[in-house]
Amino acid sequence: MSLLVTGSIAIDNVKTPYGVSENCLGGSAVYFSMAASFFSPVRLFGIIGSDCPFDFGEVFAGRDVELTGLEIREGSKTFRWAGTYHGDMNERTTDKLELNVLEEEPPSMPDAYKDSKFIFLANTLPALQLQLLEQVDKPTFAAADTMDCWIDGHIDDLQRLLKRIDCLIINDDEARMLAGENNLICAAQKVLNMGPRVVVVKKGESGSILCETGGGRFVLPAYPVTEVKDPTGAGDSFAGAMMGYLAKVGSCDFESLKTAVVYGTVVASFAIADFSLRGLTAIEKGEIENRFEALRKLTSF
Amino acid sequence: MSLLVTGSIAIDNVKTPYGVSENCLGGSAVYFSMAASFFSPVRLFGIIGSDCPFDFGEVFAGRDVELTGLEIREGSKTFRWAGTYHGDMNERTTDKLELNVLEEEPPSMPDAYKDSKFIFLANTLPALQLQLLEQVDKPTFAAADTMDCWIDGHIDDLQRLLKRIDCLIINDDEARMLAGENNLICAAQKVLNMGPRVVVVKKGESGSILCETGGGRFVLPAYPVTEVKDPTGAGDSFAGAMMGYLAKVGSCDFESLKTAVVYGTVVASFAIADFSLRGLTAIEKGEIENRFEALRKLTSF
Repeated sequence: MSLLVTGSIAIDNVKTPYGVSENCLGGSAVYFSMAASFFSPVRLFGIIGSDCPFDFGEVFAGRDVELTGLEIREGSKTFRWAGTYHGDMNERTTDKLELNVLEEEPPSMPDAYKDSKFIFLANTLPALQLQLLEQVDKPTFAAADTMDCWIDGHIDDLQRLLKRIDCLIINDDEARMLAGENNLICAAQKVLNMGPRVVVVKKGESGSILCETGGGRFVLPAYPVTEVKDPTGAGDSFAGAMMGYLAKVGSCDFESLKTAVVYGTVVASFAIADFSLRGLTAIEKGEIENRFEALRKLTSF
Repeated sequence: MSLLVTGSIAIDNVKTPYGVSENCLGGSAVYFSMAASFFSPVRLFGIIGSDCPFDFGEVFAGRDVELTGLEIREGSKTFRWAGTYHGDMNERTTDKLELNVLEEEPPSMPDAYKDSKFIFLANTLPALQLQLLEQVDKPTFAAADTMDCWIDGHIDDLQRLLKRIDCLIINDDEARMLAGENNLICAAQKVLNMGPRVVVVKKGESGSILCETGGGRFVLPAYPVTEVKDPTGAGDSFAGAMMGYLAKVGSCDFESLKTAVVYGTVVASFAIADFSLRGLTAIEKGEIENRFEALRKLTSF
């Protein structure tokens, strides 16, 4: 089934203990689309300025990523993010954030996107996520990400959004913050009470937890990787593979959601192995399947 | 097979966001023995002062915990620890530490303990762990715990110990510190290179990783609990159930080690549900088996 993603497209500057990557392609919608494209066609919906040096036809060459919803706005500047990861890379600081075109009027959705069934609203202002969601006719499964600054400053909009989506994919610290609850399982339950029928809590190198209102729970460790060069985009790659798998099978029952979370975990483990999108572009579908089976072997008893 | 534990016996004062427990029984050897006793007879080897208010016959009533190696030293004072857990209880501060009898001459090992096959050297000075290990004739499987202050200040003794034990059970931060390596999988590999053939890295609410020199790896999330009142003794309860299971089956091959880690995870999840030993003493063996199967269901895909 059709999969639509809306989110940022960025020019990133990233520093980690393993090196520096300057003026590289990033952004939540880009990581998401690349990860999802291993499973399903993707409709990319986003905006860049005319300064953007990347040829997206080339970036996604050989992948079924639809670009009619990518607006290149003349005279505007592309979103820029610069960040540094420290130590074991579980912490990062934002060195620079230039919203640029993201602060302007949002792009308008192509009519051809409006029948999309699987929707991912990557992290942005909750009011904007709601506005984007309302442009889609009748989604089967709408998921969103969010972050601390919206929980802190835009909680009313976020609460409205939560009543409209099927699934929230969120970091552990943000789940605790949103729920006002330290215990992660209780926090996930409280988020479910806010509206979505599915919550996926991402815990970085500690794996993830899937909870649904019916009482279904699934806990999965991260794939144990020895090569981590750049965690940027790990969460969006996780969401991309997860949603890509769901769109592929056209289902969102609990068994499908479990498998989707495993694929999210596996693809994220590749994404962090190299800077920018190189961790994702370096792999073939077969490697994803191999690591899926390896993760099963590593966790089963 | 016979299981011996050496470690601390403590009078604890614990504060958590859920309450206060004053002058309660604690200590690594006590939590370990209680947890191990669900699986196997335990030989407790430790020392207390004559001020200790607990009747250990009563504490372990109905459990096969041998107390001939428990020395009550006249005129000495029992080890005391006071600590406070904060927020989500992943962090704690030590408010008071009185080594008391632990700073004196160690107890002497009863001859009847010297044929013990499974040995756990709970966290103490590495030189003392070595001295205790040398008193055992021919152990089948010797495991030890350690902590940051010994890695920092007694690394030579610790390195000697690592060459003599089969298994190190260690926290994630301490594994990173010992290996001088941020990536946890690489850190575990480096610890294996220091001597033991098995390393178990405990990550608290994020689960654990088992690695052995033959290349065997097992990753397991923690059991997702909603009730956590006091994390004191969680690591020792983990080690107790793990070693208790190994002693019961008399084996330490990789499949047995995996099962042992699952039992460790399950028993630790009960231990943290209440203050002091109450989380452990409140359960029956059947509840451990039920949660073992529940964890399998929660993690399998």
